[in-house]
Amino acid sequence: MTAGRHFLQIPGPSNVPDRILRAMDYPTMDHRGPAFADVGRKALEGMKSIFKTEARVVIYPSSGTGAWEAALVNTLSPGDTVLMYETGHFAALWQKLALKLGLSPVFIDSDWRAGADAARIEEHLRADKAHEIKAVCVVHNETSTGSVTDVAAVRRAMDAANHPALLMVDTISSLASVDYRHDDWGVDVTISGSQKGLMLPPGLSFNAVSAKAMQVSESAALKRSYWSWAEMAGPNDTGYFPYTPATNLLYGLNEAIDMLHEEGLDTVFARHKRHGAAARAAVEAWGLEVLCKKASDRSPVLTAVMVPEGHSADNFRAVTLRNYDMSLGNGLSKVADKVFRIGHLGDFNDLMLIGTLAGVEMGLRDAGVPHRAGGVQAAMDLLGQKFESARAAA
Amino acid sequence: MTAGRHFLQIPGPSNVPDRILRAMDYPTMDHRGPAFADVGRKALEGMKSIFKTEARVVIYPSSGTGAWEAALVNTLSPGDTVLMYETGHFAALWQKLALKLGLSPVFIDSDWRAGADAARIEEHLRADKAHEIKAVCVVHNETSTGSVTDVAAVRRAMDAANHPALLMVDTISSLASVDYRHDDWGVDVTISGSQKGLMLPPGLSFNAVSAKAMQVSESAALKRSYWSWAEMAGPNDTGYFPYTPATNLLYGLNEAIDMLHEEGLDTVFARHKRHGAAARAAVEAWGLEVLCKKASDRSPVLTAVMVPEGHSADNFRAVTLRNYDMSLGNGLSKVADKVFRIGHLGDFNDLMLIGTLAGVEMGLRDAGVPHRAGGVQAAMDLLGQKFESARAAA
Amino acid sequence: MTAGRHFLQIPGPSNVPDRILRAMDYPTMDHRGPAFADVGRKALEGMKSIFKTEARVVIYPSSGTGAWEAALVNTLSPGDTVLMYETGHFAALWQKLALKLGLSPVFIDSDWRAGADAARIEEHLRADKAHEIKAVCVVHNETSTGSVTDVAAVRRAMDAANHPALLMVDTISSLASVDYRHDDWGVDVTISGSQKGLMLPPGLSFNAVSAKAMQVSESAALKRSYWSWAEMAGPNDTGYFPYTPATNLLYGLNEAIDMLHEEGLDTVFARHKRHGAAARAAVEAWGLEVLCKKASDRSPVLTAVMVPEGHSADNFRAVTLRNYDMSLGNGLSKVADKVFRIGHLGDFNDLMLIGTLAGVEMGLRDAGVPHRAGGVQAAMDLLGQKFESARAAA
Amino acid sequence: MTAGRHFLQIPGPSNVPDRILRAMDYPTMDHRGPAFADVGRKALEGMKSIFKTEARVVIYPSSGTGAWEAALVNTLSPGDTVLMYETGHFAALWQKLALKLGLSPVFIDSDWRAGADAARIEEHLRADKAHEIKAVCVVHNETSTGSVTDVAAVRRAMDAANHPALLMVDTISSLASVDYRHDDWGVDVTISGSQKGLMLPPGLSFNAVSAKAMQVSESAALKRSYWSWAEMAGPNDTGYFPYTPATNLLYGLNEAIDMLHEEGLDTVFARHKRHGAAARAAVEAWGLEVLCKKASDRSPVLTAVMVPEGHSADNFRAVTLRNYDMSLGNGLSKVADKVFRIGHLGDFNDLMLIGTLAGVEMGLRDAGVPHRAGGVQAAMDLLGQKFESARAAA
Repeated sequence: MTAGRHFLQIPGPSNVPDRILRAMDYPTMDHRGPAFADVGRKALEGMKSIFKTEARVVIYPSSGTGAWEAALVNTLSPGDTVLMYETGHFAALWQKLALKLGLSPVFIDSDWRAGADAARIEEHLRADKAHEIKAVCVVHNETSTGSVTDVAAVRRAMDAANHPALLMVDTISSLASVDYRHDDWGVDVTISGSQKGLMLPPGLSFNAVSAKAMQVSESAALKRSYWSWAEMAGPNDTGYFPYTPATNLLYGLNEAIDMLHEEGLDTVFARHKRHGAAARAAVEAWGLEVLCKKASDRSPVLTAVMVPEGHSADNFRAVTLRNYDMSLGNGLSKVADKVFRIGHLGDFNDLMLIGTLAGVEMGLRDAGVPHRAGGVQAAMDLLGQKFESARAAA
Repeated sequence: MTAGRHFLQIPGPSNVPDRILRAMDYPTMDHRGPAFADVGRKALEGMKSIFKTEARVVIYPSSGTGAWEAALVNTLSPGDTVLMYETGHFAALWQKLALKLGLSPVFIDSDWRAGADAARIEEHLRADKAHEIKAVCVVHNETSTGSVTDVAAVRRAMDAANHPALLMVDTISSLASVDYRHDDWGVDVTISGSQKGLMLPPGLSFNAVSAKAMQVSESAALKRSYWSWAEMAGPNDTGYFPYTPATNLLYGLNEAIDMLHEEGLDTVFARHKRHGAAARAAVEAWGLEVLCKKASDRSPVLTAVMVPEGHSADNFRAVTLRNYDMSLGNGLSKVADKVFRIGHLGDFNDLMLIGTLAGVEMGLRDAGVPHRAGGVQAAMDLLGQKFESARAAA
Repeated sequence: MTAGRHFLQIPGPSNVPDRILRAMDYPTMDHRGPAFADVGRKALEGMKSIFKTEARVVIYPSSGTGAWEAALVNTLSPGDTVLMYETGHFAALWQKLALKLGLSPVFIDSDWRAGADAARIEEHLRADKAHEIKAVCVVHNETSTGSVTDVAAVRRAMDAANHPALLMVDTISSLASVDYRHDDWGVDVTISGSQKGLMLPPGLSFNAVSAKAMQVSESAALKRSYWSWAEMAGPNDTGYFPYTPATNLLYGLNEAIDMLHEEGLDTVFARHKRHGAAARAAVEAWGLEVLCKKASDRSPVLTAVMVPEGHSADNFRAVTLRNYDMSLGNGLSKVADKVFRIGHLGDFNDLMLIGTLAGVEMGLRDAGVPHRAGGVQAAMDLLGQKFESARAAA
Repeated sequence: MTAGRHFLQIPGPSNVPDRILRAMDYPTMDHRGPAFADVGRKALEGMKSIFKTEARVVIYPSSGTGAWEAALVNTLSPGDTVLMYETGHFAALWQKLALKLGLSPVFIDSDWRAGADAARIEEHLRADKAHEIKAVCVVHNETSTGSVTDVAAVRRAMDAANHPALLMVDTISSLASVDYRHDDWGVDVTISGSQKGLMLPPGLSFNAVSAKAMQVSESAALKRSYWSWAEMAGPNDTGYFPYTPATNLLYGLNEAIDMLHEEGLDTVFARHKRHGAAARAAVEAWGLEVLCKKASDRSPVLTAVMVPEGHSADNFRAVTLRNYDMSLGNGLSKVADKVFRIGHLGDFNDLMLIGTLAGVEMGLRDAGVPHRAGGVQAAMDLLGQKFESARAAA
């Protein structure tokens, strides 16, 4: 029995706002009845505004992993080559999933300390004269490292190479937190999930599908049924689904879409950027290192922090959980026990961020991880810059 | 704006009890943290007690359709023959799914007016000297028709034919409503979903997997990743999942398991049988016909009622929804507009049933469907039998 | 552990709709902060539309009993004579309360089988040449008997007698269920509570206060602080309260006001009248007697039913609760164990009513109370009349 | 539309935990039915364990103000002298209430910068040879100033003066946050409310009543009905109430009682003391002054901070609300606009406190209130002391 509110500062699932939990706390309805069409249409249309697309959005009752699978099985055939980029643990999981499905991924490796390098993608594409590469797959915000890939640059690289591959982007931890434009950036399949920027519990995943991808899917030979876009398209056009949808999560999704537009997507993005900057200011003040080396690629959604050699990030996390009732993200595979991850995404504000950073700073102290005090103060200073002009004017 | 509580009397999703909705209305937690293990273990272990199995249970964030797919892709190889039985629309959908996955279903047809006939299954198996049939797939409670298949009889038929095929059973609309015994009946894969007898919103599905099925899965060649039992097994053993589970639905599932055991599964089954009998007494009194002809196969979960020739079941349902705010199930494919289905499953009691039957009786009248009055009275008489001995003793 | 939804068919508290429970399930806010003013103003203004008054409404965190006390202590002085009318148990409680506060009630007695008789009130007033009677107090809908008093007739009687007494009306179980008009009917103080027609949990009570009553209160000598209208008036004018209000109940109240206007008050009143008529049709078919003898005074909110001599209403209620999980109202004081009361108010619809009446009919049978079957059928017939013209037209 | 969770840091209502909100979010039940007795008894018995008394506890549907009134009207007669102590605004309100009820309060004045001085009370009592003083009324934790009165010392003073007056203590903002012992300290009437340490929304209030007070009430001549202990006693003995109780708030109360005992009252008290100390460490670091001068009387529940001459506390609060979405308490009457109050009570933990203090520190900066940075750091240092020995041992 601990008092007060748990600080859930993993990089997703993020904190679910009361409005969304309450919207889900309603009787399940008849998913074939006339009233459901409004629910379904609002979700399907609303998600277009979040993906910034005029194309089709598909909603699955599944985790984000399912949406990765859906993107591949709808567009590819056994043995197809896909170009994937190892930005971190989740990119690696997606590559393993491609292997299990019988695809032939080419995996561009990396040290996990930056987003995908569009130039290296371009090299591979230029070398692929026969156009054997059927899809380029990148992770927009790599949740395991806190690095963001410049998707527009990847698109430009593909255009520069004049390569016809599909562009597939995982936005599971970036959608509705980091600026993203499915149509403008020429993405063919965008993958996402409910439990990060959309502020929902886990259980829904998404594909946004370009007209080109939809067409390609007609001849794609991988077997599919549950994930089939073609099955979804008909019922979706009138607001229904081919199998029982996760009704109560859809209630929550519709509330989330409203909330995001009430705050304004640009305001949401700016809020996350400011919090990312404040978190990094704290890390710098502590004298620790952010995992993502490339400044322009640092994530507004989470900050992965390297623990000094000889110290255990997992012990630090356990101490912090025990002493301050805060959950932080762990280092995964390559960086296991070497980094911890601070989630600062979703339904989040300045004082929650300071509470979070204070938990880290006190946890570092309690766990005996070498650092300097002052991180919280540095974050407070940075946050205050927003109000400086108001102060100057006063 | 309608007053009072909507009567959701489709045969699932069923009415979600407040306790379950409220259990889900809690902050999402860290699915990798130490506290989650208790949630995961309770769900995985608890579901064994519902399936009546000592074997492994797998939980997916997906609709029931996903669990159909999971059962097949984990155990079969491309082109494998599966023996399926057309008890109704959902059996037919499962067969179509098998086709899409590249399997070769043999489909035993039927008039949709009874559960699967074990003798016909036995014939097919005896004829299959080469053991090309890799799995026998039946639906326990066919939601489109209201017929129940005697699964123990199917098992006996398979044993009598001395056939090694796997036995797969869809219990999506029967689990936790109709007596079911995964181990006793020698089932290899049981498929189920959250939104019927488990009283949850849709969004979770299940496979219960026998040791034999688990072993078969090692050499099964259909491609799989999201649905892979092997991926689940490791993390599940300590209460975790290989990808983000649908945390809040798991909260609800654990509450549902508690509620079912508090009432007692046998009491739950008896309650459904009594309500099924009362619903059929009403149908008989109305002078209408129950779709399921075979008396022993009639479902305790739902009652599909045939509308007299020349009348529209869908018009009747629309009138009933408009006049009495009650949703009934529609007739599907072969019986579209010819039957309506009354769901009487899940969190349900005598007075809710009478309200439901009254809505049907008044709706028949309002829609001009020929019938005799007195169905509600007949149901009340039947329900009262339970208390007769008490009255006699008094 | 019982399955399904409990039938709460006492004549209040009534069933609280999910929308209202969910509206209350939000964090308590700063009752002195700027955002609260909107909550407070909406509640105070909204309640005027429900009372149909332009005058002041006062909201207390208290039960309805508190609002009775408030009406008296704000307007009267020690020893003042008040004319009260014994329509039933609650009128008698109000009279006892007046005695405890040091007032001198004149209590017009009755057999509890009708609303207040305006002619008898007029007699008393005409006889009171010295105008010693300072207030006339009647109960609009007597919850213990199911009789309604014609308040407009009482007003006319007072006017005919040319008597200056204040008119005070208890609408605890009628407001928002039975047509009521504070201003049109010249009422000085209307008393009400949250847990009946307003569909809220108990905990809020109300006074609607005419300008005359407000003026009278300035010289009223009964001591008061918590209940003081004068204390409320100032803060209320800007949406605030002089002490911490019951914030979360106010959230629910605002939702209730919205719901009532969405359905339309006239539609709400008509719904209750139709349900009252259907309940009485059932009682008649059972061969039982409604407590309220005067047809025009029978309540749309509840029906009190007399149990045949030699039978126990309380035993019947206990049996019904045990067998069918339905709570009915008991007979109070004079009619203890002789009547039971069926509540059919608040958030209620046709199928809930039929379920309720079925519970009564089956309970009568199980408890061995002599009656004829057919009450439910009679109610169904009456309810169907609403749709007859549609059927005729079809 | 603001993102993230509002920081409600007024000194009550405090943050309501999800468990309590969810416990309240259940259908209202029959308050006269057999199941209610368990709810009522649990609440009435449970509150004894919180007040630390074997005597009777009375629960009102009302604000805390109502419980003040109840204490007086049950025990006193018109014109009775009561000795009250002006520890701050709320003590003054209670005194005004006594005046309105026709009592004769003797009011010991103070500068609002300490708890009640037992010595001064003793002087008054010693001087009252005729025992005209019928009650001594003190506020345990004065919410307007953040000072705590040593109630045991007051009891000792009364005993030393050998004075028979009743001892009445307002614990509205201390109960379940600051150690309190109704029986041990010989208190006759303890007053409390639901919305502070009990973590509920406002709407319930309490009297704990000694046997002596109960006896005195028999001859007390102030008029009462709603507040009458005698009316409550009978029904309460079996778990019921004389009028409709605030059922859903009682559900929440029972959950709160469970939560307090799960954490342990002593742990709860220690948590509040530590947070009070941390808050004061921050104030000291800012170079600001705590309103309560006497160190031993400083409240673990809230900290009232004086703003430097020439600066507006209310402007600071408005800026903090606008920039950081945090509500702070305002200065009341004598100290209006001169102090702000930080609530750190109820369901609260270290990181919430740091977020709160960060909001204050950043708000001071944004509002241009002279202060030194470093308050948050000082609080973090103090909070860390708890874990020092663990660190030393590691």
